[in-house]
Amino acid sequence: MDAIGYIILQIFVLLLIAKVLGQAFEMMKMPSLIGQILAGVIFINLIILYPEIGDALHFYPDEFMHDETNFIHVMGEIGIIFLLFIVGLETRLGDLIKVGRTAMYVAILGIVIPLLGGAALMLVYDPGNVNLALLVGTAMFAMSTGVTIEVLRDLDAMSSKEAKIIIGAAVIDDILCLSLLAIISGIVNENTDNTTIILNAITVVIFLIITFVGIFKIRGVADRRRARMKNRCLCEVNPDGTVNDALDAKDAHKKSRSELGFLGIAVLVCFGMSALSYTIGLAGIIGAFLAGMIFAEFKDTVPCEENFNVVTAFMLPFFFIYVGLMIRLDEFEMGMIYLLVAMIVVAILTKFIGGYIGSAMDKMPKKSSVLIGVSMIPRGEVGIIVASIGLSLGIFTDSMFTVVIMMTLSTSIVAPPLITWTYRNMHKEKKNADIDL
Amino acid sequence: MDAIGYIILQIFVLLLIAKVLGQAFEMMKMPSLIGQILAGVIFINLIILYPEIGDALHFYPDEFMHDETNFIHVMGEIGIIFLLFIVGLETRLGDLIKVGRTAMYVAILGIVIPLLGGAALMLVYDPGNVNLALLVGTAMFAMSTGVTIEVLRDLDAMSSKEAKIIIGAAVIDDILCLSLLAIISGIVNENTDNTTIILNAITVVIFLIITFVGIFKIRGVADRRRARMKNRCLCEVNPDGTVNDALDAKDAHKKSRSELGFLGIAVLVCFGMSALSYTIGLAGIIGAFLAGMIFAEFKDTVPCEENFNVVTAFMLPFFFIYVGLMIRLDEFEMGMIYLLVAMIVVAILTKFIGGYIGSAMDKMPKKSSVLIGVSMIPRGEVGIIVASIGLSLGIFTDSMFTVVIMMTLSTSIVAPPLITWTYRNMHKEKKNADIDL
Repeated sequence: MDAIGYIILQIFVLLLIAKVLGQAFEMMKMPSLIGQILAGVIFINLIILYPEIGDALHFYPDEFMHDETNFIHVMGEIGIIFLLFIVGLETRLGDLIKVGRTAMYVAILGIVIPLLGGAALMLVYDPGNVNLALLVGTAMFAMSTGVTIEVLRDLDAMSSKEAKIIIGAAVIDDILCLSLLAIISGIVNENTDNTTIILNAITVVIFLIITFVGIFKIRGVADRRRARMKNRCLCEVNPDGTVNDALDAKDAHKKSRSELGFLGIAVLVCFGMSALSYTIGLAGIIGAFLAGMIFAEFKDTVPCEENFNVVTAFMLPFFFIYVGLMIRLDEFEMGMIYLLVAMIVVAILTKFIGGYIGSAMDKMPKKSSVLIGVSMIPRGEVGIIVASIGLSLGIFTDSMFTVVIMMTLSTSIVAPPLITWTYRNMHKEKKNADIDL
Repeated sequence: MDAIGYIILQIFVLLLIAKVLGQAFEMMKMPSLIGQILAGVIFINLIILYPEIGDALHFYPDEFMHDETNFIHVMGEIGIIFLLFIVGLETRLGDLIKVGRTAMYVAILGIVIPLLGGAALMLVYDPGNVNLALLVGTAMFAMSTGVTIEVLRDLDAMSSKEAKIIIGAAVIDDILCLSLLAIISGIVNENTDNTTIILNAITVVIFLIITFVGIFKIRGVADRRRARMKNRCLCEVNPDGTVNDALDAKDAHKKSRSELGFLGIAVLVCFGMSALSYTIGLAGIIGAFLAGMIFAEFKDTVPCEENFNVVTAFMLPFFFIYVGLMIRLDEFEMGMIYLLVAMIVVAILTKFIGGYIGSAMDKMPKKSSVLIGVSMIPRGEVGIIVASIGLSLGIFTDSMFTVVIMMTLSTSIVAPPLITWTYRNMHKEKKNADIDL
């Protein structure tokens, strides 16, 4: 069997475990993504325990860890990019501006408090090691947008005001985190010069301004396209003068072809904006989100939402499986269990407090503030990136690297049930209140 | 920018060229897959000419050629696997049995004639080198199912009798080719023992028998499921005794959820059968085709066709782009141009003659035989595999390797316009004949 055969076999085994566990969690009224993350965790650690399984599947954990371009990572990255495109598609600029101030508070406090909390914890653990403290603080502040959004989508909660604030905060959080990451890794690594950092920051600001102005302008184009489509008669006139007003089978076929064409265009713009976003040092998901916002204006004339949802449903599980594959229990030293627990507690509490205070400051009701707080808890990609930077600069030891990764991912496993539970609770009380009236 | 950012950038550039060229070919009433293959050809050769483009994209052709697990190859393989699943979905066992004899003739002659033709050509070119002659003959006999089927789908010709014969022949061709490949590479490579070859052949036969019997049996299950679904009332009864007979928004949402669930199951079975198929030494696409045939029986109770089509529309272009990326003009020696042209002519003629005689033998009309003949022309994956085996055994030189690959892929570029033209011609005359009556 050649390499590609083994890859198909690996995909099958991973998807099978993910499907079984995902279904089990759904039956427990929990988001299926926890099952998908756990599938990754079980797969990688089983193979480490029983290398003969890895041999049979041609899957070698050490090789996998160091190959950033392996297919599960790529498919997962595309999945998360597509998810953010869909979120952008459901977000109108006006809605975002409405919740802008609250989102800004939530995002800023959600960065400052975890950064300080994480750094403080590490200064207690290893006094005087400022670089270590700074990096752990950095690993603690960036949320994983994908996890929270997928949970909210699962709960059908994406149109609520809280969700809008969370999305807004997540986008601001992502932008600030990545800018801050550039600055902090510049401070920690003495080889980076300051001009580069400042130039990068300026590029990011220009990119965002141009895109938002562009989205604003594009509304005119969308309106004109809508008017043109309305004027053009949907029914067709035959050469003999008769009119077909019903869509026959061939037309329906043509329609689905053209919708697949729209999907192609949307995919292209989504990849283009993501690539641009990477090029200037931001995460790809920000570009994808903005691309989605552009298409939100063309929703009725260039419908791509349904098909995009289907493709995303196929690609997204790879993202969560990949997250799970990063959790290697063998690289964990039992002596560091207390530090890990402390870090997880600090990570959960600081982000929750940041989100809670941030929204309470803008006079959000208490229950909404709690929901926003728990929604900020999951950490992900950026935490992993920071851990890798720490390892490569020699600031993290191998076991510290593993602890930071495990802290990052534990939050992603803990948060979904918390968000689900909080949302259901809030909803139930609201329903009860409605009945009482 | 990290590695994953560059990959997204590469995907964007490749999809952009593919979309532009694909659209151009569609405007010329040609299949867009030619545009996608050309996108790959242009991309790789531009980068070889101007390595600075490759540097900017972090794309290195030599690395790419030797990395069988790179993401474009994986995505393309998934695309072609999904395509064959869809073809299976449109194929009922009964239809296949009806055209079975013709398909068998077409497949067998379509293997024997190219094998003899290719070997004869090479014995003229390099008399006495039997191993070289055998391997080139082998590289010539396996058709690329994906190209032909995508062209026929583009032409809306999949339900015609000719298409059924072509699909049947393609499946038999794939099975025979891979079995024969195992035997011939066993003969050429003196290290393989005969027991392994025979055991492999037996496994393949058992696998096919079990699957076909399984598909036959599964019809009973499908019928029972259909009956059960009919009995269960589609409308819902409310707690207060009233009945909702219209699907409200929430139900529609639930429906699309459950359809995404069906997609998940279909994807899983498709990957599972492909992996099984690889494991016993067949190509993954055969397993995928059989998986599709299984789901064909559940089409009305587990609808997954529409969503599967959407995912395939996204994944499939990567397959054709990958094919194009294999055509490196720099590895081609000008002195071998005559050999290349001779090989292309022999490859096209022998496969055409095989298909034509095979179907004419079973009394197919002349025009249908021509269509079946040209449809067998494209070669692909197996040709590339044979070339790699030849290179690794030292039977092919570097330039012979390139010539064989270029022969293989030229047929895939030449065939689509030929198929399109033949089909349109046949169709037009049929229409004219209808009018004359």
